Amino acid sequence: MRADVPLAKAYLLLNHGPVTLVTSASGGRSNVMAASWAMPLDFDPPKVAVVIDRNTLTRELVDASGEFVLNIPPRALAAAVVGVGNASGREVDKWARFGLEPLAAARVGAPLVAGCIAWLECRVLPERAVERTYDLFLAEVVAASADERVFRQGRWHFEDDSLRSLHYVAGGQFFTTGTAHESAPGR
Amino acid sequence: MRADVPLAKAYLLLNHGPVTLVTSASGGRSNVMAASWAMPLDFDPPKVAVVIDRNTLTRELVDASGEFVLNIPPRALAAAVVGVGNASGREVDKWARFGLEPLAAARVGAPLVAGCIAWLECRVLPERAVERTYDLFLAEVVAASADERVFRQGRWHFEDDSLRSLHYVAGGQFFTTGTAHESAPGR
Repeated sequence: MRADVPLAKAYLLLNHGPVTLVTSASGGRSNVMAASWAMPLDFDPPKVAVVIDRNTLTRELVDASGEFVLNIPPRALAAAVVGVGNASGREVDKWARFGLEPLAAARVGAPLVAGCIAWLECRVLPERAVERTYDLFLAEVVAASADERVFRQGRWHFEDDSLRSLHYVAGGQFFTTGTAHESAPGR
Repeated sequence: MRADVPLAKAYLLLNHGPVTLVTSASGGRSNVMAASWAMPLDFDPPKVAVVIDRNTLTRELVDASGEFVLNIPPRALAAAVVGVGNASGREVDKWARFGLEPLAAARVGAPLVAGCIAWLECRVLPERAVERTYDLFLAEVVAASADERVFRQGRWHFEDDSLRSLHYVAGGQFFTTGTAHESAPGR
């Protein structure tokens, strides 16, 4: 069900602005956090930008490994998204606490979150100045995959409501990705 | 109908990942382009990150003025969003061509797009290295406002479908912002 996405199409997984789960691993530890502040940065080779707060365990693991995965969760995982966004991996094993299952990634040590609808495996680009000043990480996407039920032939197909992606607001409030439209240029 | 949004709440206008229109002005010229690659970068003072390609007129105007506005368009402006994303301000007056009306901003010289549902007025932060390498602009939000029909008391209220925000994919395809949900942390 999980299928590779060509790297030149990887930006499409993130282009519509869904919330992400950031997974990371180093030295036998791994973690998962929620991040809304993630976006594509380039097409091919694909790059992304994501904000990872300096006080998080994720930051420690990403700094140590130079890798992370951006996982795109579906509505079915909404409660877990809110959960991992409100707990610290320093205090609790968020995988166990929120019933999330790690899967091996193809190209990085950080795990994938099972049940997500898309995955971008990323290697951090050495831009220490913006990391230090803004907690902003720039990274190259080295592998991408998606659940074929919702992303195939380079397009999203949100037919099952429980598999729609999420757009986070604050305080446990989010929107699902809504109706698809095509629009020709014009007034 | 347009009401100020407190700066500490400005990130909420962009947090759910909508497509934006970037407006800019310098030396008597102004322009509007579409940008999906925009996200919050900090809460308070609010900052944003946005990718502005080096080959665009917008880039020239932003480089000259150090200012831009991120406008959040509603579904009613979808065709204009696709239009300005597929035309160059060097070749056509995109305001006139796509029937968009500029309004004066409060704190920057770049205009607001009338009929949008939210506006973030931004001043570029001096991060020339990432601008040059990645076309990535980091900026501080110096004023924010929103259409009270859809954003009030620090929350989105998408009741009118024509005023829902948009999430752009590619090739004229986009999603509207869908159903709102609340979720408590847990499985």
